[in-house]
Amino acid sequence: MKKFLQIVICFFLLVSVSATANSQFSKPEFAIKYRQSVMFLMSQHFGRMAAMLNEKSSDNKEAFEDNALLVQTLSRLPWQAFRVPGTDKGHTSLKSSAFQQQDKFNEFARTLENQITDLVSKAKSGDFNAIKTQFGEVAKSCKACHSQFRNR
Amino acid sequence: MKKFLQIVICFFLLVSVSATANSQFSKPEFAIKYRQSVMFLMSQHFGRMAAMLNEKSSDNKEAFEDNALLVQTLSRLPWQAFRVPGTDKGHTSLKSSAFQQQDKFNEFARTLENQITDLVSKAKSGDFNAIKTQFGEVAKSCKACHSQFRNR
Repeated sequence: MKKFLQIVICFFLLVSVSATANSQFSKPEFAIKYRQSVMFLMSQHFGRMAAMLNEKSSDNKEAFEDNALLVQTLSRLPWQAFRVPGTDKGHTSLKSSAFQQQDKFNEFARTLENQITDLVSKAKSGDFNAIKTQFGEVAKSCKACHSQFRNR
Repeated sequence: MKKFLQIVICFFLLVSVSATANSQFSKPEFAIKYRQSVMFLMSQHFGRMAAMLNEKSSDNKEAFEDNALLVQTLSRLPWQAFRVPGTDKGHTSLKSSAFQQQDKFNEFARTLENQITDLVSKAKSGDFNAIKTQFGEVAKSCKACHSQFRNR
């Protein structure tokens, strides 16, 4: 068992991260793939919420809340991956200006997190119109950052 | 604001899901990308946990627990995306046998979820040896499913 564990730990160290817990990505490509994975999952779950809002059915209250909570968890993950030097090159649509304007970028990130937290509160309340309005606010904060820091 | 909301909702419906909340993926490619995104994030966070176990530092208790909880959340997401017809073709390493042996596949999925839940419990306990052993059990359940249903 000890030998198996050593192999397992070495495997994960080799394939995904470097040997210290503080440096999160062993290669810039992994940081790009990490943030793209998070963003893709967020977009999918936003899509599910949009479909629920479109159906206007109160049957979806719990499912909507689950999606909002998941998006809240995901929204806290990707920011460090946007700070890895060199990750404005390669298979990415990130503008280099995201590195030059880190304060602005961080402000967008915090706004998104806060708007999603508010969406979770509204989802718990079950007030359809408030949820719909807040969903629009979240979308606005996505759009604001994408307009500034994402190449089309 | 109403117009903006309509546009936002239509946008999410168009880009990510079909118009009903029950069908989760509008295109097989999205199901493939969804499960690959989840699996990549899981592998990254397993890597972070492996690094912490490798460092043998008790400073990482809280961070380890956060990673285990996140992996637990992620581990519940991808299974539906493995059931979308046609997603054994294209940019995927899923074997077609995953569709023919769904009971077996589901058994692997439940085992992984249960092993990760147990890892979360061990992480909360702070017992380093128990955590390390359980981390090995989780890795075994990854490997068992990959050996059977993933092309190399």
